[in-house]
Amino acid sequence: MTVLYKANMVRGAEWARFFAERAPNLPFRLWPDIGDPAEVRYLVAWVPPDDIAATFPNLELVFSVGAGVDQFDVSMLPPHIPLVRMLEPGIAETMVEYVTMAVLGLHRDLLRFIAQQREQVWREIRITPAARRRVGVMGLGQLGQAVLERLKAFGFPLAGWNRSPREIEGVACYAGTDTLPEFLGNTDILVCLLPLTDETRGILNADLFARLPRGAALVNVGRGGHLIEADFLAALDSGALCGAVLDVAEPEPLPAGHPFWSHPRILLTPHNASMTTPDTAVDFVLEIIGRHRRGEDLPGRVDRARGY
Amino acid sequence: MTVLYKANMVRGAEWARFFAERAPNLPFRLWPDIGDPAEVRYLVAWVPPDDIAATFPNLELVFSVGAGVDQFDVSMLPPHIPLVRMLEPGIAETMVEYVTMAVLGLHRDLLRFIAQQREQVWREIRITPAARRRVGVMGLGQLGQAVLERLKAFGFPLAGWNRSPREIEGVACYAGTDTLPEFLGNTDILVCLLPLTDETRGILNADLFARLPRGAALVNVGRGGHLIEADFLAALDSGALCGAVLDVAEPEPLPAGHPFWSHPRILLTPHNASMTTPDTAVDFVLEIIGRHRRGEDLPGRVDRARGY
Repeated sequence: MTVLYKANMVRGAEWARFFAERAPNLPFRLWPDIGDPAEVRYLVAWVPPDDIAATFPNLELVFSVGAGVDQFDVSMLPPHIPLVRMLEPGIAETMVEYVTMAVLGLHRDLLRFIAQQREQVWREIRITPAARRRVGVMGLGQLGQAVLERLKAFGFPLAGWNRSPREIEGVACYAGTDTLPEFLGNTDILVCLLPLTDETRGILNADLFARLPRGAALVNVGRGGHLIEADFLAALDSGALCGAVLDVAEPEPLPAGHPFWSHPRILLTPHNASMTTPDTAVDFVLEIIGRHRRGEDLPGRVDRARGY
Repeated sequence: MTVLYKANMVRGAEWARFFAERAPNLPFRLWPDIGDPAEVRYLVAWVPPDDIAATFPNLELVFSVGAGVDQFDVSMLPPHIPLVRMLEPGIAETMVEYVTMAVLGLHRDLLRFIAQQREQVWREIRITPAARRRVGVMGLGQLGQAVLERLKAFGFPLAGWNRSPREIEGVACYAGTDTLPEFLGNTDILVCLLPLTDETRGILNADLFARLPRGAALVNVGRGGHLIEADFLAALDSGALCGAVLDVAEPEPLPAGHPFWSHPRILLTPHNASMTTPDTAVDFVLEIIGRHRRGEDLPGRVDRARGY
């Protein structure tokens, strides 16, 4: 019974160390050193190998090493094999840090200050009180909820939008497509934390930008596939959007010469908003393996019809 | 009995509106429309006028419109006239926002990401957990305490250093010059929120930088006069410091061509970290005027010997 890891190798070495400490009797292997494929029962992967089912005939469970599973072609996985998203707390905490930084940066005119510094211009910008800066989060799963919880202390009016209804104290929660225009009309800084599915692909489009108050700002920490690039650039140019912080793109890495790199009102980071923390991720994986062996519910198990 | 305001005129118009609403019988004037100088009992100023005492023979109290008073030459003020610093909550809240943004930015490698974007390089940077990033705040007055309180939720180990002893739950507090080396040796991100006095001028110098762990980062939201520029640039060049967020400089505005503008590891903002909020500042000023008329203690009253 072997656990096989196929993702970032530097962090893989840390996974191996924590596995050796916490589950010394459970063989743990780093791709491509797969050993006997028939022994592999558990796979932890970012991009899964081709022909999973044929290669690993006794596979019982697959983990995504990240919070999302859009990089998996679930049709390649036999239906009896559960796919589990990473719900370990390190992802949520690093995402909260990044989104708080991005929201405060947009709230406090960081992109304009970076441009002024480049131009060597010392010019004060009037501060808007947080009470007049409405922050709206799309996607109210583990990450969206953690982000909203941390933002409460700053006094922003908070809202959230989700496919299915949620209740979060101190947050105006909207559910379903019908409520999206009202949610957007009351959002000055929009944070996208949606999973990428057939329903959400291209959701950050001209129609959505037009429903935001003029001069709103965007934080995209979902996936590059959420964003229609041409619509987004047009919204920046028209002033519909005043600026954006993007951690994701399509494709990644974003090629040199792409207009996002040099746009003065885009701050771009290399899919670095959150990161699975080996220490806590190993605890999560061992917990799920234990639950699976005991036939219990699996937190983070992906609903294949829904896509997350 | 007139209140005279001499500072930013755009905000002055808002002060006038709030005064008219909340103290309709108290005449309020905006510099240079001073009216009868003998009527001026209260002065609210950023840079005070020359010859205050001679110009306003019946002056009873002076407010700094900002949190600091280093821009005042207190020797020009007759000893019987109290000088009061602005303790209104809007300054503290905007400072908390800015410092949180700056600390998260340094913690999450924002300066390197800005440089990578300029160079069109998509390269992931490993995230350091907040638990291994020690944040230390110099100056534990109203602002320093508010900053530390907000940073608690992020899980940074927190420390504070102050001239006189303070106790803050969850913060390792150091007091006095003798403890400074120990405080610095345990600080990865140093935030300067000190008042500028004869004792603190030039405190951010080569000796201080040498006592920080190698590769530490600096946030200066105190005054430009705290920083010895040549020592600071040498520390950045040697790698003793990895980066800095500066909101203050000497002189202000910083002249074009100054090396801070174009340094890739300095993020510079134009003394914009915090701003007095007219709404809450007018409440504070009216409260202090009431206390003064009733002969009560004056919160924020400057100790002239101490300089703040």
